[in-house]
Amino acid sequence: MQKQENKKDYQVQFTLSKIVNLMFSTTYDPKTGKGDVIANVSIINKHDLNRVLEIFKTAMMSGLTVSPFIKILHEGESIGDLTIKEGKIGLATMCSITIDGILLKRGILVNPKFGGLVQIEEGSPVRFTDVLTYASTSIDPLEALMSQEITSVTQMISTGSGKILANLREVPIAARYDIDHVLSDIMDAGLSGILEVGEPNRKILDVPIERDHLGIVVIGGTNPMAIVREHGIPIETNAMSTIVDITEMSDIKDINL
Amino acid sequence: MQKQENKKDYQVQFTLSKIVNLMFSTTYDPKTGKGDVIANVSIINKHDLNRVLEIFKTAMMSGLTVSPFIKILHEGESIGDLTIKEGKIGLATMCSITIDGILLKRGILVNPKFGGLVQIEEGSPVRFTDVLTYASTSIDPLEALMSQEITSVTQMISTGSGKILANLREVPIAARYDIDHVLSDIMDAGLSGILEVGEPNRKILDVPIERDHLGIVVIGGTNPMAIVREHGIPIETNAMSTIVDITEMSDIKDINL
Repeated sequence: MQKQENKKDYQVQFTLSKIVNLMFSTTYDPKTGKGDVIANVSIINKHDLNRVLEIFKTAMMSGLTVSPFIKILHEGESIGDLTIKEGKIGLATMCSITIDGILLKRGILVNPKFGGLVQIEEGSPVRFTDVLTYASTSIDPLEALMSQEITSVTQMISTGSGKILANLREVPIAARYDIDHVLSDIMDAGLSGILEVGEPNRKILDVPIERDHLGIVVIGGTNPMAIVREHGIPIETNAMSTIVDITEMSDIKDINL
Repeated sequence: MQKQENKKDYQVQFTLSKIVNLMFSTTYDPKTGKGDVIANVSIINKHDLNRVLEIFKTAMMSGLTVSPFIKILHEGESIGDLTIKEGKIGLATMCSITIDGILLKRGILVNPKFGGLVQIEEGSPVRFTDVLTYASTSIDPLEALMSQEITSVTQMISTGSGKILANLREVPIAARYDIDHVLSDIMDAGLSGILEVGEPNRKILDVPIERDHLGIVVIGGTNPMAIVREHGIPIETNAMSTIVDITEMSDIKDINL
């Protein structure tokens, strides 16, 4: 067991290299509504299921995530490398890097930059207050930020102000009009996570952008998990853990609690 | 309250910029044993004090930290911006970035690169398995890693194998002989955290180094806190939080439990 783990750990894998592989594996087409998306998988205790689904529903209906789609995994069921243990439930939800996969498959060279916290004031995103770049960390930025207990997603839902998880990618200015089309297709398909699209060569949410690029900020798919943590309910989140066929997922509004 | 916080958060501060300011403030001279060092401040519950000190003592005597020096802060006492609340105890210990401050004050251009996890096998450091660079994260890498529950410092003490917190800095090859002198002064002063000094232009613990530089790996000052967490005792660590006069600290072996 220990030996096997050593093998896997032989070289440090930065988050970015994991992301680009998952982006390549994304086949979801917002026009047909079919294909594979990137999923975050959260593990909770079975007896917390109803409370957690209630929180997820509120977060997803408030647009505090990429999509309302969810797959519930019961004891013994598997997803990716993960098998759900006794007494546990797995919740697969869409990861915001799916948006990068969709852009890539439309031929747009998208560069995922970082995960961070965005301060929202009276419903409007103001600035990034914390940042971890994908190219220089081997642990997932949003998992790291979530565990620092500096999010205030619950407060954001109730008051309109707070700090939520979000991430930034840069796209070249040449792809500007294509981006508008793809993003509008994404929204037509019921995905809701686009928080802000920047102007070319302009800062976005107080963060500078590379020359001849523009920034796109997407809401982190892990905000519902941050709320669950903020409520003191145990949840273990594996962000960007695997791909899943979207037809295996259901809209959370169709799930009866 | 909220407004004040907003002001502080106005721009993202990367860990590296915090580090270089603290390095400049380091006045500790290993030859005289006097001056200010950089401190991590941990907050624990008062009733856990004896258990925590016992763990700290074991960790420090095993060399799993930068120094055996500690300052205990009681209710109402302050350090830096922090005041200890009722029912709590503060523990100020030496941060490994103190080593970088000492090197800088000897005129060596030291470049703190990242915090990470080092796999130890049968007492020998083998490789970095996880890494977060200071230049690209606004939360402290060792705090982030500690909260991911992927350390196994307790196991390392009992079996000689496990994953501990450590960090890497690069120094220019021209300073090679000076480094030897400074590091030997540091060890003479009773600081114990130097885990590995690399060869110029060679990888260190499986991590590449910039050309004409060599790498120095120092044990994270936060390993004792990781053990406390691994034991399930609540502890909140503020890494690199302030500077403290070393004469206000005591050697943990002189503290009676």
